[in-house]
Amino acid sequence: MRIGFIGIGNMGMPMAGHLLKAGHEVIVYNRTTEKTKALIQQGARRAETVAHACAVEVVLTMLADDHALESVIYGQQKILEALPKGGIHLSCSTISVALSEKLTSDHVHRGQHIVSAPVFGRPEAAAAAKLYVVAAGDPASLDKCQPIFDAIGQRTFRFGDKPSNANLVKLSGNFLIMSVIESLSEALALIGKGGLDQREYLDFLTSTLFNAPVYKTYGTLAVEKKFQPAGFLAPLGLKDIRLALQASESLRVSLPIADLVRNRLLTLLANGGESLDWSAISQIPARDAGLK
Amino acid sequence: MRIGFIGIGNMGMPMAGHLLKAGHEVIVYNRTTEKTKALIQQGARRAETVAHACAVEVVLTMLADDHALESVIYGQQKILEALPKGGIHLSCSTISVALSEKLTSDHVHRGQHIVSAPVFGRPEAAAAAKLYVVAAGDPASLDKCQPIFDAIGQRTFRFGDKPSNANLVKLSGNFLIMSVIESLSEALALIGKGGLDQREYLDFLTSTLFNAPVYKTYGTLAVEKKFQPAGFLAPLGLKDIRLALQASESLRVSLPIADLVRNRLLTLLANGGESLDWSAISQIPARDAGLK
Amino acid sequence: MRIGFIGIGNMGMPMAGHLLKAGHEVIVYNRTTEKTKALIQQGARRAETVAHACAVEVVLTMLADDHALESVIYGQQKILEALPKGGIHLSCSTISVALSEKLTSDHVHRGQHIVSAPVFGRPEAAAAAKLYVVAAGDPASLDKCQPIFDAIGQRTFRFGDKPSNANLVKLSGNFLIMSVIESLSEALALIGKGGLDQREYLDFLTSTLFNAPVYKTYGTLAVEKKFQPAGFLAPLGLKDIRLALQASESLRVSLPIADLVRNRLLTLLANGGESLDWSAISQIPARDAGLK
Amino acid sequence: MRIGFIGIGNMGMPMAGHLLKAGHEVIVYNRTTEKTKALIQQGARRAETVAHACAVEVVLTMLADDHALESVIYGQQKILEALPKGGIHLSCSTISVALSEKLTSDHVHRGQHIVSAPVFGRPEAAAAAKLYVVAAGDPASLDKCQPIFDAIGQRTFRFGDKPSNANLVKLSGNFLIMSVIESLSEALALIGKGGLDQREYLDFLTSTLFNAPVYKTYGTLAVEKKFQPAGFLAPLGLKDIRLALQASESLRVSLPIADLVRNRLLTLLANGGESLDWSAISQIPARDAGLK
Repeated sequence: MRIGFIGIGNMGMPMAGHLLKAGHEVIVYNRTTEKTKALIQQGARRAETVAHACAVEVVLTMLADDHALESVIYGQQKILEALPKGGIHLSCSTISVALSEKLTSDHVHRGQHIVSAPVFGRPEAAAAAKLYVVAAGDPASLDKCQPIFDAIGQRTFRFGDKPSNANLVKLSGNFLIMSVIESLSEALALIGKGGLDQREYLDFLTSTLFNAPVYKTYGTLAVEKKFQPAGFLAPLGLKDIRLALQASESLRVSLPIADLVRNRLLTLLANGGESLDWSAISQIPARDAGLK
Repeated sequence: MRIGFIGIGNMGMPMAGHLLKAGHEVIVYNRTTEKTKALIQQGARRAETVAHACAVEVVLTMLADDHALESVIYGQQKILEALPKGGIHLSCSTISVALSEKLTSDHVHRGQHIVSAPVFGRPEAAAAAKLYVVAAGDPASLDKCQPIFDAIGQRTFRFGDKPSNANLVKLSGNFLIMSVIESLSEALALIGKGGLDQREYLDFLTSTLFNAPVYKTYGTLAVEKKFQPAGFLAPLGLKDIRLALQASESLRVSLPIADLVRNRLLTLLANGGESLDWSAISQIPARDAGLK
Repeated sequence: MRIGFIGIGNMGMPMAGHLLKAGHEVIVYNRTTEKTKALIQQGARRAETVAHACAVEVVLTMLADDHALESVIYGQQKILEALPKGGIHLSCSTISVALSEKLTSDHVHRGQHIVSAPVFGRPEAAAAAKLYVVAAGDPASLDKCQPIFDAIGQRTFRFGDKPSNANLVKLSGNFLIMSVIESLSEALALIGKGGLDQREYLDFLTSTLFNAPVYKTYGTLAVEKKFQPAGFLAPLGLKDIRLALQASESLRVSLPIADLVRNRLLTLLANGGESLDWSAISQIPARDAGLK
Repeated sequence: MRIGFIGIGNMGMPMAGHLLKAGHEVIVYNRTTEKTKALIQQGARRAETVAHACAVEVVLTMLADDHALESVIYGQQKILEALPKGGIHLSCSTISVALSEKLTSDHVHRGQHIVSAPVFGRPEAAAAAKLYVVAAGDPASLDKCQPIFDAIGQRTFRFGDKPSNANLVKLSGNFLIMSVIESLSEALALIGKGGLDQREYLDFLTSTLFNAPVYKTYGTLAVEKKFQPAGFLAPLGLKDIRLALQASESLRVSLPIADLVRNRLLTLLANGGESLDWSAISQIPARDAGLK
């Protein structure tokens, strides 16, 4: 397949690499061309403009936020203008439900297709082609994208025709991850203040009822206080919780744990945590409890 | 070993049964003798009074709450008076950290030993001898109790010399379980209000990052709305969250998710949920969101 | 003074009337001209377009939200283009801090002045010229606008040079009002569930420590359950709390009571409360408590 | 009237003084007799034991908490035994609803009367006989106690026959005061982080909608950071919020703002605030926001 790939960052880089390995023709575009070099060496072609990356069957976008995605969609020579009729925009970024809905409407109006397919997994999972892909869109487009999903991920979950469904699932998933960080942090503060060993406690939890990757990954980060280098930056965590809260506000659903997490992130960022991993919020309950 | 066993309820019954199967001599006491019949047929002896169950090396208590435990500890012919010097009180009930500390002091003052060993697992796990045992106390007493732990559980975790440590771990664990119920309920309300299928969503979660028993068990209860018969009654959930909050207050640690859960339970109980499983709090976010 | 007045709603109508009474020349503009009739009879002139209302020394805007204000600011023949150099835009709407900052920058760039002066008071206070005016902007412009403030309000409070300061004060003030509604609602639910008379309780509060208009006004609405006709609509309350939370997010300040109030409003709106007064959130703690 | 007075602290001292001035015969008892000296000089008689202070028509208790009150009620030669049939126990302490209910039952069982009459006001108000008295009990006993209320307070509010009603009102009142402190603290953090002057802001609030003593008193303490000497100690604030939460739990009512306040107090106490005024919780939102 001929695939445009826009957004070569920590996640996009390994994902594009897997597409090349799977035998696809990949035309890559990034705002700073520097980052595309390694892929060119692996056989990718460089697109000089967004438009060049759109002369394809599927153009995949993997960008940081709504703003970055909008900047390659709207305007002259941007995706909405450059993608041929019948072409598919495969949107993998973690964006707002509202933008996803707007994109869908704009693409359909142009006779283009859109599939939303955000992914779960940190950069290591992307490198190992072990991402979980959460996809939604019209069935024919989903089928056409399936080889892409197979190349980058270990499993694909489909959530119906409406592309924004996948974005809602992604945001709710990140919300649940942050709920784990928050609840673990509270429990660890309690246990630590009670004089018990936090590592033994975490080992107990993750050997029994809480035997899931998310508890191991974030529990270990919290106990070892390894917040740098950040796997996922606190400001991005705040962005995602904000998008979850925006979606919940539109749907008239309250998410009190999301409020809690948002406040932890604000406190972290107000006190110098801009460059830390989002799991650094675990130190706030500890500090409040007077734990050294 | 000669073991007294006080408290033959949903959990105590299978636990005592496993002790018999393991070849121990078991003397059982229950306020209502009716419940001891099945165990007598399996070879247990019946104690007519609490004191009779204390003429042993280890007396195990498995009761509903602080009040029930206090009623067999304090007073004439009760455990504190009847247990011989050097005897071990193996306290398996989910009780307050404060009572555990008081018991420890009282037993030590009498030359008796105390081991706290609350267990994790619902009645099915007790029946299958698959409980997780969380134990704390002096090492010699813990060693002496180990055959008991081996008979009833699949694994034992030791948390040091101070018996109340085990109670704190137990309470924090129940707090974490309720945190899972709460966060899942919020996410399910969001997903449901967004028009997605909650079952598919739960299947996605529990096949990926949240692949832990606690998400499967409680997610399924929430999605299928199976709150009767209750595996763990909402009023008992409220009791446990109250005990967690009491411990956190003594230690000067705030647990905002515990506050949230407590409020859900109060709302559930104020609206007729006395006989429901604690996971029925999952219906409150749904109701608030206007989901049918 | 020659004053343009854009936005003739429940608040704008009496405010413009007071300007006429004070002897000013007032040119009124409203999207639907119907609403300007009464003012024309009182001596106002009607502007056919936004631009016509800008051929003045001061153009005052009193609109529902950011969106409505932007629609009269940006574009051909709108305020930014039509207001003469040296002219003052007196912005009285409750808008976001972010829009206020953007407006300031845009006006200054054009050589125009901007004063932010949101007001406190419900329509009755506007009718009685008893509003409290919260103003910020450059001192010369504030001085020039003072006769306007004197005509519509009972007292003006100045908060410095930066126009958005006034917007932050306004949003924080509405947040405090909603905090009163929330805390009173919780206390009333407790008192009511305890079997006491809520009216007597409210009378006690407002005769003693809580002897302030806001407790009387909202306490009475809550106890009498008079939520229609709405003095201030619940969806507008949600808008204001959202703007307060946005400002707090930019400033990295957490406002947990604002989160609580936002969730009450979402629950109210998810359950049919679109046309009710914002104080109707008082019924949610009552419902949760099982009070009829 | 012949009145026993038990508990000569910051509040009890001026209250007993006013009873003497009003011409009553007052027999005072305090655990440490030192504190009764000044009253003896004003004409009071000293009771050597609790029992001596009970040979009266009305015995008034003004003690720190449930525990202190229980220690003068139960046991040999204590109030329950020593107060004559038909005598009135006038309970002015801030105690739990549960203890108030237990006391009522115990007194009635002995043919004694009980009136609950906690008061609102800090020591200055007690000195000026300007307390607000919140009273509940059987009408005849209330009438009999009215001269006492008139001597110590500026106004009495009656809340029915059930003595614990008055305790619930008192606890809910303290909860509302703490809600004011919390909401003001959040708003002040926002305003301060936004670069505005907190004093001007507070002046604005208390000159307009929030023109109530409670906003002035606590807002000034928060802005001036005057937390020592404490008018009301943080640990006592925690006690009162705990009692409010206990009452709300029994009644199945959730009080999320009380949870917030409780957590602020725990954080304060975990970080060295034992000797500060409860309004010192106002510094926590400021610290979280990174305000110096």
